[in-house]
Amino acid sequence: MPIQQLTLSQISQDVQQCIQNCLDCHSICLNTTAYCLQKGGHHAEPAHIKLLMDCAQSCQNSADFMLRSSDFHARFCGVCAEVCEACAQDCDRHSDDGADTPMKACADMCRRCAASCRQMSMAMA
Amino acid sequence: MPIQQLTLSQISQDVQQCIQNCLDCHSICLNTTAYCLQKGGHHAEPAHIKLLMDCAQSCQNSADFMLRSSDFHARFCGVCAEVCEACAQDCDRHSDDGADTPMKACADMCRRCAASCRQMSMAMA
Amino acid sequence: MPIQQLTLSQISQDVQQCIQNCLDCHSICLNTTAYCLQKGGHHAEPAHIKLLMDCAQSCQNSADFMLRSSDFHARFCGVCAEVCEACAQDCDRHSDDGADTPMKACADMCRRCAASCRQMSMAMA
Amino acid sequence: MPIQQLTLSQISQDVQQCIQNCLDCHSICLNTTAYCLQKGGHHAEPAHIKLLMDCAQSCQNSADFMLRSSDFHARFCGVCAEVCEACAQDCDRHSDDGADTPMKACADMCRRCAASCRQMSMAMA
Repeated sequence: MPIQQLTLSQISQDVQQCIQNCLDCHSICLNTTAYCLQKGGHHAEPAHIKLLMDCAQSCQNSADFMLRSSDFHARFCGVCAEVCEACAQDCDRHSDDGADTPMKACADMCRRCAASCRQMSMAMA
Repeated sequence: MPIQQLTLSQISQDVQQCIQNCLDCHSICLNTTAYCLQKGGHHAEPAHIKLLMDCAQSCQNSADFMLRSSDFHARFCGVCAEVCEACAQDCDRHSDDGADTPMKACADMCRRCAASCRQMSMAMA
Repeated sequence: MPIQQLTLSQISQDVQQCIQNCLDCHSICLNTTAYCLQKGGHHAEPAHIKLLMDCAQSCQNSADFMLRSSDFHARFCGVCAEVCEACAQDCDRHSDDGADTPMKACADMCRRCAASCRQMSMAMA
Repeated sequence: MPIQQLTLSQISQDVQQCIQNCLDCHSICLNTTAYCLQKGGHHAEPAHIKLLMDCAQSCQNSADFMLRSSDFHARFCGVCAEVCEACAQDCDRHSDDGADTPMKACADMCRRCAASCRQMSMAMA
């Protein structure tokens, strides 16, 4: 179910939305890693796969720090926004101008997550 | 958004639902850990907190193996069902007969996740 | 430093050795993932990369359950032994009869970790 | 075995030492979490347990970004140094002026990890 329907304690609406985006971005990046390895060719370029793995792990990390209401969540969200943005651009580059639907969907999700992580990091600054 | 609306490659409806349950269960267990530490008293019993941490990590692990379409996902879902079941029972025990809403919600989510992980592990047997 | 020199509470010698093997196996599998993507060709086969990612995550998971002295550590070590064994065999297959030193080192580490996880899982059975 | 004896590809001596410190710090923080919950009293204060969980996860995250030779490892090491430093100070506060050996060992390890993560983050700046 969408995270807004989970009963989470002491998590504001804004933070919930950012957690949801991070979990979604983690999921799609991990799944896209498998898709890209399967496709091969430029999809399987080392730098691209590594960026997808980076983004998947960074988003999980951010989500967990928010779920624990950690004091450090905004610091990690700041770095996470950079990772997501880099991953979005790289997914775009491999998306065949949007014709490659999974790559396009991953790029869009990474960009959405970058935006909410950036906002989270600035809210705390 | 619910995971069904993400564009995931080569993940069946059943597996998507189990991934969603695992991510939800991970989220609520991690959040409940913070809630229980805050509450103190019997909520903060070592065995209870440890079980919540176990369940959070096991569910993340299961979700990731399914997102990668790993051959081992069913094996991990089998163990995960046991962890979730144990955590559900322990959350019930701390829920003041359901009056403690966060504990009740966590117990329910763990039970739902246990059921879908069990099904996943049997589908592959 | 080797984990035996860390001051860990309530962790027997046997468990410490298994934790060390799991952390080593996690490290080498993650590092080998990057190596294999860089090499390309058969090293970057989807099934091989996926198995390395599976093994890295499973070993981390096992190590964490042991470090928390979780009741479920033996169950996870049992599955982890299977993952490590599969990864060892796959790394051997890509090791050019041992001439590819990083692949050979990864295969050996996976086999060592499989053995200690198997032992851990049986000690509790 | 110490990570320096693992055959890791394209990881310099400095980075290997930092990975080792991060893995050690992850291990001791996770183990100390269980120790503190067991002890109860001030050891189990929510903020303290949360910081130990933060530090364990942050160190794992940093280690993994270094093991993948990710471009973002220095950014994460920078935040990780802050988390480790905060955790070191909090562990000191609970160490009974050093008489509580596990707390003292955890504080020392966190401080050592903070130093090498800080250095890693500056090397890249």
